[in-house]
Amino acid sequence: MSAEAVGIAPVSFQRAEQDLPFVPYQDGVMFQLLQVNIEAGLWVVRVRAEPGTTFQRHKHTGQVLAFTLSGSWRYLEYPEVNTAGSYLFEPAGAIHTLHVPDSNDQITDIWFAVTGANLDLDGNGNVETVLDAGTVLEIYRAQCLANGHPAPDVIGA
Amino acid sequence: MSAEAVGIAPVSFQRAEQDLPFVPYQDGVMFQLLQVNIEAGLWVVRVRAEPGTTFQRHKHTGQVLAFTLSGSWRYLEYPEVNTAGSYLFEPAGAIHTLHVPDSNDQITDIWFAVTGANLDLDGNGNVETVLDAGTVLEIYRAQCLANGHPAPDVIGA
Amino acid sequence: MSAEAVGIAPVSFQRAEQDLPFVPYQDGVMFQLLQVNIEAGLWVVRVRAEPGTTFQRHKHTGQVLAFTLSGSWRYLEYPEVNTAGSYLFEPAGAIHTLHVPDSNDQITDIWFAVTGANLDLDGNGNVETVLDAGTVLEIYRAQCLANGHPAPDVIGA
Amino acid sequence: MSAEAVGIAPVSFQRAEQDLPFVPYQDGVMFQLLQVNIEAGLWVVRVRAEPGTTFQRHKHTGQVLAFTLSGSWRYLEYPEVNTAGSYLFEPAGAIHTLHVPDSNDQITDIWFAVTGANLDLDGNGNVETVLDAGTVLEIYRAQCLANGHPAPDVIGA
Repeated sequence: MSAEAVGIAPVSFQRAEQDLPFVPYQDGVMFQLLQVNIEAGLWVVRVRAEPGTTFQRHKHTGQVLAFTLSGSWRYLEYPEVNTAGSYLFEPAGAIHTLHVPDSNDQITDIWFAVTGANLDLDGNGNVETVLDAGTVLEIYRAQCLANGHPAPDVIGA
Repeated sequence: MSAEAVGIAPVSFQRAEQDLPFVPYQDGVMFQLLQVNIEAGLWVVRVRAEPGTTFQRHKHTGQVLAFTLSGSWRYLEYPEVNTAGSYLFEPAGAIHTLHVPDSNDQITDIWFAVTGANLDLDGNGNVETVLDAGTVLEIYRAQCLANGHPAPDVIGA
Repeated sequence: MSAEAVGIAPVSFQRAEQDLPFVPYQDGVMFQLLQVNIEAGLWVVRVRAEPGTTFQRHKHTGQVLAFTLSGSWRYLEYPEVNTAGSYLFEPAGAIHTLHVPDSNDQITDIWFAVTGANLDLDGNGNVETVLDAGTVLEIYRAQCLANGHPAPDVIGA
Repeated sequence: MSAEAVGIAPVSFQRAEQDLPFVPYQDGVMFQLLQVNIEAGLWVVRVRAEPGTTFQRHKHTGQVLAFTLSGSWRYLEYPEVNTAGSYLFEPAGAIHTLHVPDSNDQITDIWFAVTGANLDLDGNGNVETVLDAGTVLEIYRAQCLANGHPAPDVIGA
């Protein structure tokens, strides 16, 4: 038996940059949702943040792969600064606070593949909100609608 | 290049049933922790529950594979009853309440491979506790110590 | 936002032991295919092997979780013998030859969750055949048909 | 129990663009290996290809995430052209031939996260070579050495 014996291979799914809109996530942050696999707990997202942005401290229940396209940022808990071309691997269990410095003179643009949930933590370390493939898809669809975009054709949605 | 070119292959890890103790998890429930991979968010556990046991309702952030060895149980949210030889696949995002009926006349013994976290929910659907590879390892080690067992040799710990 | 905000959670999938037939895989071996996820590269299978069985040496491209239900077996490359209740974790890259000893007096029954492909190797270490979620589904369907069973309702197929 | 109860969270791993060299992979192609996890079957790589490059047709045993940074390319089996900002999801089982057109006037720069193995196929669909986390690490180390670079500090190696 050769690999040919498999027959028809499953197809790949592509989205060009302009295929899916960037919509507001929080003040100073726009995002584009590229893929969700709710049953696998995977979500792939691109985030564009203005200088001076901080995201709520959160714990990850799965692994995250991050590739930085422009700008600079770091987690307040680690010294490494991510700039264009930086790759970051975040293991399950990581807890951190994403910060984009005020001193940046351009948008910080980051591509993330996230497995599992972001557990957003309050000041006492309790879970305040859960951001996962299902909830991020709801937020993206609602923001596309609210901002006059057609229903987005997210991979896997 | 053939597959031989890979050189030394990574080793596998085995635990026989008697290699790791069953210790109390909650009233009527004993468990054995076989493997953790904290950075991947994986934990493999075997659970033995007496008739009449109910676990707190929880949401999964990753996939779960479950194989039932004896007894019977179901999730209160689904009709299917799991008995010896039953396989259950739980996708990420699943929310359910494991229940072992009072009418069972033997221990219900289930093997689980869990990815990500169990988010234990209170009556309002808020996250009360987070059970994941890191926390289950802490609980298992503490219960082994409290019950007079040596430090357990959990795979990946 | 609470976890309730997720809305309808994805459903789980259960198969009882009698829901899917055991059919011949090779001389002395019967198998039951419980789940495939071709796009994820996952297949879940239960194997029943008579005493004296050896499977072709293979390399794994992904991780394998194995739980032994009865009998005894080992990989010829490792000393550990798996018996009822044994758990085995095989990392990606593992290369081994599953062997069930002649001296067994009962069927060896093993549940496997396999990620990726088994690359069956010839005596020179070259890849002879590729066994993955797609090919194992083809084999299972063909063997069900050939042995007079209805089309099997494998999870994910 | 709050998320704080987890104690010390596992650390993340970052590599800036200049931390790891680009070295030759094949004629017209340079690559940078960012991460391997041999036991999980994960490898993260950045590829820079000159116009007119074609890679050997291969089958994937796991999923691939691809983000294009510059240039343009496509799989000969699919019509979609990937340009800067394009995201591509390739399921396990995908079979394709990566091609960078002659007409490009710049380098095509792609970031890939690959799970499992690339099974490079000959003209008859037989597996000629196996490229996976272990073999790509061997190739990268050898090419760093051959090109006068220090031993590369690949994540997970």
